[in-house]
Amino acid sequence: MKIRLSPRGDDFFQLFEQAADNLVDGAHRLLDFMKSYEDIEHQAQAIKEIELKGDHLTHEIVGKLNRTFITPFDREDIHALATGLDDVVDSIEAVSNRMIAFKIEAPTPQLIEMTDILCHAADEIRKAVHSLRQLDGLMGFCIEIKNLETRADEISRHLISDLFGREKDPIAVIKWKEIYGRMEAATDRCEDVANVIESVVVKNA
Amino acid sequence: MKIRLSPRGDDFFQLFEQAADNLVDGAHRLLDFMKSYEDIEHQAQAIKEIELKGDHLTHEIVGKLNRTFITPFDREDIHALATGLDDVVDSIEAVSNRMIAFKIEAPTPQLIEMTDILCHAADEIRKAVHSLRQLDGLMGFCIEIKNLETRADEISRHLISDLFGREKDPIAVIKWKEIYGRMEAATDRCEDVANVIESVVVKNA
Amino acid sequence: MKIRLSPRGDDFFQLFEQAADNLVDGAHRLLDFMKSYEDIEHQAQAIKEIELKGDHLTHEIVGKLNRTFITPFDREDIHALATGLDDVVDSIEAVSNRMIAFKIEAPTPQLIEMTDILCHAADEIRKAVHSLRQLDGLMGFCIEIKNLETRADEISRHLISDLFGREKDPIAVIKWKEIYGRMEAATDRCEDVANVIESVVVKNA
Repeated sequence: MKIRLSPRGDDFFQLFEQAADNLVDGAHRLLDFMKSYEDIEHQAQAIKEIELKGDHLTHEIVGKLNRTFITPFDREDIHALATGLDDVVDSIEAVSNRMIAFKIEAPTPQLIEMTDILCHAADEIRKAVHSLRQLDGLMGFCIEIKNLETRADEISRHLISDLFGREKDPIAVIKWKEIYGRMEAATDRCEDVANVIESVVVKNA
Repeated sequence: MKIRLSPRGDDFFQLFEQAADNLVDGAHRLLDFMKSYEDIEHQAQAIKEIELKGDHLTHEIVGKLNRTFITPFDREDIHALATGLDDVVDSIEAVSNRMIAFKIEAPTPQLIEMTDILCHAADEIRKAVHSLRQLDGLMGFCIEIKNLETRADEISRHLISDLFGREKDPIAVIKWKEIYGRMEAATDRCEDVANVIESVVVKNA
Repeated sequence: MKIRLSPRGDDFFQLFEQAADNLVDGAHRLLDFMKSYEDIEHQAQAIKEIELKGDHLTHEIVGKLNRTFITPFDREDIHALATGLDDVVDSIEAVSNRMIAFKIEAPTPQLIEMTDILCHAADEIRKAVHSLRQLDGLMGFCIEIKNLETRADEISRHLISDLFGREKDPIAVIKWKEIYGRMEAATDRCEDVANVIESVVVKNA
């Protein structure tokens, strides 16, 4: 069944697409941040602005939801999708912020690998959100996001185990434990988004 | 549009007012706790009792909600407001509890500053909850709460960065990182309450 | 009032019973893991499989919920109960995982005591879920779960205070703080389940 394309529904889809594009922008800027690791204060500021833009879009979607009687899909799913996309962007910003606050000299190769996985998950979210109008191919994107989350989770667990086995400086342990934890949280939040999208698909199939 | 004042609705408003008054009580007692930092075990016990009172009020609101067919505003918002107010009080209690468990000798001036911001946010929540019946002036209180949260967030980020730059004792780093984190969480939870109140306003405007 | 026993409702109850049995299995295997503390990699793998089974059951319940029009109790409570049971199992798996990742040599007696409390809470959840069809005796199970959570909370707070007073190795502090925190989170998640069950009882009483 096709979702009804009311002008009002169209507004929701456009806002979600903007939020997903913003999320992809944030993820790829975090990858640039990690890979170059130069002029990082300035790069982190750009990511902070993406986070603020995400807040603004979420606020717009929730406001529209509260003022709208007929919505293109379930109200609770619209709310969950808006806050879910926002949570991913918040997690991305938290990682760049902690890298600077902790004065990390350089990212580890595994952190870059996790950021790369996050970018793939963000790309899949973008494809899924841009396919919401047609409800087409969404399950494939969701499965891919979950596979990426499982990989990130495995890398993170290995990294934590390795960190405690290798690093003797407790302050460094505290810093890296938090950074890896927040990086993993970012992909966890992508999986939350995939779960909401799955729920929309099942209800409207 | 005015919210309908059923006797039943009146019960809800009274319980929310009690929960908000209790929250303000908790925040101000935490400020006394920080400022005096004397007889802290006894002061923490008083805050623990406020937390238990908050649990009791939340339980009463949720119970009434489950037994009530017609509610003064959306069921999901009543539930979110009750648990939101409770989460603020839980966060306040967690801060005083950790100060004692970690045997902190004295709060830093910045921690007192953050507690002061929390008290302002609590006062605004109280004003907002006491204005729910009339739905009047609520947006102003919500904006102020969000501004206070942004300030607390900035202070907290600066403090974390400063802590890692200055403190060489890792155990002290662990303790203060948790205390500042929980203090920031308390103002985050105030912002969550502001978001619920905004949603009530938009739906009933 | 009795919950209507539609064939569809029956499916939900059966899935919840399977999820609760799986949770009990996970809790008791964690207790075996702690008590024997031998061949722990293999035991942790068995707990990981229980966690995956829990994911599968949750996915099945949520999928069924999205495809079902008439449900045996409120949709939001079905969703909350499914994710609540899953969160307990996730917390259990996280504890065993961290014991291995942190290369903990042996559990403390207090950790075994907390795991024992968790098993009791899991048993009460199982009894409550198996009584959902008749809605009988549920409140008693819920009260017992909350009492167990209060005990776990007290032990955990005492342990954290004791840990910071006694342990001089900061890396050990980081590890044990996380393990005790995750163990406490597991009983907190049991209390969340009790709250959902209470809500079902009140609405259908």
